[in-house]
Amino acid sequence: MPYVNIRITNEGVTAEQKVELIKGATDLLVKVLGKNPATTVVVIDEVETDNWGIGGETVTSIRNRNR
Amino acid sequence: MPYVNIRITNEGVTAEQKVELIKGATDLLVKVLGKNPATTVVVIDEVETDNWGIGGETVTSIRNRNR
Amino acid sequence: MPYVNIRITNEGVTAEQKVELIKGATDLLVKVLGKNPATTVVVIDEVETDNWGIGGETVTSIRNRNR
Amino acid sequence: MPYVNIRITNEGVTAEQKVELIKGATDLLVKVLGKNPATTVVVIDEVETDNWGIGGETVTSIRNRNR
Amino acid sequence: MPYVNIRITNEGVTAEQKVELIKGATDLLVKVLGKNPATTVVVIDEVETDNWGIGGETVTSIRNRNR
Amino acid sequence: MPYVNIRITNEGVTAEQKVELIKGATDLLVKVLGKNPATTVVVIDEVETDNWGIGGETVTSIRNRNR
Repeated sequence: MPYVNIRITNEGVTAEQKVELIKGATDLLVKVLGKNPATTVVVIDEVETDNWGIGGETVTSIRNRNR
Repeated sequence: MPYVNIRITNEGVTAEQKVELIKGATDLLVKVLGKNPATTVVVIDEVETDNWGIGGETVTSIRNRNR
Repeated sequence: MPYVNIRITNEGVTAEQKVELIKGATDLLVKVLGKNPATTVVVIDEVETDNWGIGGETVTSIRNRNR
Repeated sequence: MPYVNIRITNEGVTAEQKVELIKGATDLLVKVLGKNPATTVVVIDEVETDNWGIGGETVTSIRNRNR
Repeated sequence: MPYVNIRITNEGVTAEQKVELIKGATDLLVKVLGKNPATTVVVIDEVETDNWGIGGETVTSIRNRNR
Repeated sequence: MPYVNIRITNEGVTAEQKVELIKGATDLLVKVLGKNPATTVVVIDEVETDNWGIGGETVTSIRNRNR
């Protein structure tokens, strides 16, 4: 029954990586808490780098500086 | 004053259905809790089927198998 | 498969009202979008009035003024 | 270490305004609570006006009426 | 930089299990996406069984029936 | 109409600080985007330090080490 929300920047995550994230998060809830995987929901949100801030600046700005 | 967040997979929900979801959720809060509809906020998030997992697999995968 | 999050102030909501909110929100998703109720999740968050703001002030402050 | 999520309608917010929101929210947490800006995360979600409801109707509908 | 929110029912999760969830979710993001663990945030929300619904009924009701 | 969710660890935030966070976040949305404060909602979530992880460990563990 758990609900897991994974929020990451939108920077080329592949469908295969999403499968791994969903499988891995579900397995974690099963292993640690004995949850039922059939009703474990995992939702991945991909957020534009202009819309994600850390340290008071956008990830776009951080990526540009580190190029 | 309530805030309702409805998260669903992005599979062809129409503008009319969104109107019904927003009206229905607002009415529910008014009816059950006597909330003021004027400040009741409903936000619908449509999530790609690659990004939604249940039972440890993506909805994309479930849809493909059930075709 | 939908996930609905209802956030309200913590002001004496009863167990019966929570049952009604959960049933009502699930029914809404079934009726409007044909979703499967068995995997429809509804989570209610009750938030202290000190922690909820609207119009730039806390609900605690609004409630005190309107007594 | 705080996490701030700003949800707004998708109505032409510029990259410069996003920078201001991220900087302003981070500064607020530093000023009021003495939080470390380096680990303060701000995420902006832009939501289509069809998907945002207030007063039981969509923002699309409100905008159309007020034209 | 990812943000992971794990929502579960409040049914006796121990501090040790929370440590495992946080470590496991962080490791998953590092392994699958190469994310920096130092800025990976994991937040666990424990929700009362009266406030969690699935299949249109509360977890409290499901637990009572299955006793 | 914006919705702002501020998530912080539960470490003695006072009612006055919550007032400042709510006022500050509302003012930010008004100043940067010209939003209407009357329908701007700010919700503060205080999370136990056992339930907040960064760098793969709980804030409880970080606080204990830094004593």
